[in-house]
Amino acid sequence: MKLNKVDHICIAVKNLEEAKKRWEPLLGKTAPDDAYIDVPEKINVARYYIGEVGFELMESTTPDGDVAKFIERNGEGVMLLSFGVDKTADAVEEVKGKGYSIIGGLRDFRDCQFAFVHPKDTNGVLLEYIDDKTEAPK
Amino acid sequence: MKLNKVDHICIAVKNLEEAKKRWEPLLGKTAPDDAYIDVPEKINVARYYIGEVGFELMESTTPDGDVAKFIERNGEGVMLLSFGVDKTADAVEEVKGKGYSIIGGLRDFRDCQFAFVHPKDTNGVLLEYIDDKTEAPK
Repeated sequence: MKLNKVDHICIAVKNLEEAKKRWEPLLGKTAPDDAYIDVPEKINVARYYIGEVGFELMESTTPDGDVAKFIERNGEGVMLLSFGVDKTADAVEEVKGKGYSIIGGLRDFRDCQFAFVHPKDTNGVLLEYIDDKTEAPK
Repeated sequence: MKLNKVDHICIAVKNLEEAKKRWEPLLGKTAPDDAYIDVPEKINVARYYIGEVGFELMESTTPDGDVAKFIERNGEGVMLLSFGVDKTADAVEEVKGKGYSIIGGLRDFRDCQFAFVHPKDTNGVLLEYIDDKTEAPK
């Protein structure tokens, strides 16, 4: 297994506009107004870059979405750590071979693939592997 | 506010040795045996680097330690996101001036300073600013 970088970190929030107002003075950045709004995953997302790492605030667009369910169980907070690898499919094969559980197999997002390791194997952390194809803006 | 990078991410775990065994195949790395063991903060820590980001597994060395209390309230999981800045003292002054709460003021660690923003201001996330003086090993 070779991780290239922490690709992104996701924070589950109840209200994206309020969360943006709280976080932007702490981050020293503003998000584009129209990034990842109402995507098929039923989330609205504001994405920032901190160094090479994407930092995402996510709200659910439906009460039964994954983000809404996470908040119901855990409250608002860090929902996901995503690690960039050369090829998610290879990473998944490797960790499955070592006995780790993958939630729902490989998934497609635009031009790349990603997969989730079950939090029971990672001390409660939802860990994602994702194809490392993106570059942080300078 | 100018953030240089995500300095490190901390995962609160009950048992460090078990957590290392779980995580190291997923990270593709091993931690040095003697790093940050029984430091004054009453934690044992295994630190890895993923790209430029430190990734820490932390266990408490006492039942009344901060990590133990976090797990009691929240279960195991992501406890802290730390952002590297040129000078924590300046970052703290800036965010205090904007009405954010700092837990316990500036703190010293070896040759640098760090400070915590209260999770009530950050959707439940414990956010740290830390002087950015360290370099990830190549």
